[in-house]
Amino acid sequence: MTDHIIIMPPRHTLKATQGMPGTLGGFLLRFLQFSFAVVSLSVMATTSDFPSVTAFRYLVAAVSLQSLWSLSLAVADIYAILVQRGYRNVIMVRLFSIGDGITSTLTFSAACASAGITVLIGNDLNDCAQNHCSRFETATAMAFMSWFAASPSFILNFWTLASK
Amino acid sequence: MTDHIIIMPPRHTLKATQGMPGTLGGFLLRFLQFSFAVVSLSVMATTSDFPSVTAFRYLVAAVSLQSLWSLSLAVADIYAILVQRGYRNVIMVRLFSIGDGITSTLTFSAACASAGITVLIGNDLNDCAQNHCSRFETATAMAFMSWFAASPSFILNFWTLASK
Repeated sequence: MTDHIIIMPPRHTLKATQGMPGTLGGFLLRFLQFSFAVVSLSVMATTSDFPSVTAFRYLVAAVSLQSLWSLSLAVADIYAILVQRGYRNVIMVRLFSIGDGITSTLTFSAACASAGITVLIGNDLNDCAQNHCSRFETATAMAFMSWFAASPSFILNFWTLASK
Repeated sequence: MTDHIIIMPPRHTLKATQGMPGTLGGFLLRFLQFSFAVVSLSVMATTSDFPSVTAFRYLVAAVSLQSLWSLSLAVADIYAILVQRGYRNVIMVRLFSIGDGITSTLTFSAACASAGITVLIGNDLNDCAQNHCSRFETATAMAFMSWFAASPSFILNFWTLASK
């Protein structure tokens, strides 16, 4: 009876590379995503007039989602490192890949929309005296950084899924 | 001597699926990308004041690049269909994949930035009387449609590359 526990199907296991879920590289990527998203959220929240612009409200929503997602996966990574087992299951990698695709696309689109508004205020209208230009720019830049850190996770998961 | 011509390395050939370069599905995707990008470019060009906003100038540049890239690959697809041979070479697929990744990311970011500005003018400032809101919205929507048509090409090429 105990023999059944040892037998594992080799088809459903994946090779672990640094940056994959459950590795130290993967945890570092998640930590960077989470940090940048939280900084972007905080900086945007300190400006009093961000709710007057739809794109900035969208940025706040997108980086909130990104920070929650990255934090959850960072916790999952720590657990996997502590018990010394990677996430080599195909269904888990597919789930992570779809989630990464959605959150990183949302973060990128929000960062692009905010960048459009920031450039409009700063360069086209020259209206930085009345607006918190530097804070808007910092929040946008941090959202882009969060996306830069999220891209390797997504590409790596997607690549692993395709080459399984 | 003639035997050498027949021998082909099986490692460097890829399985052709509909939507891949050199198939009818691939050509249809390229045609849709090109059409939407050209419509977006034309609609934006008919507005007299688009150069005053940086995001709209960026949209014009991005959809121009997208239309040129899609037109080139559409011509390459027609050639491949006519000579009845697909692009199964790994280097070609890698080139197409990188090009698709760059152009579709540019188109998506430009569409997002324009959408941010359009929503700012229409909803936040309520200033559609002085601006060509409907044309800006049409151009933005067409750029998004072009990106929607470009995504399957990119994902399919990337997937093929990873699963080779």
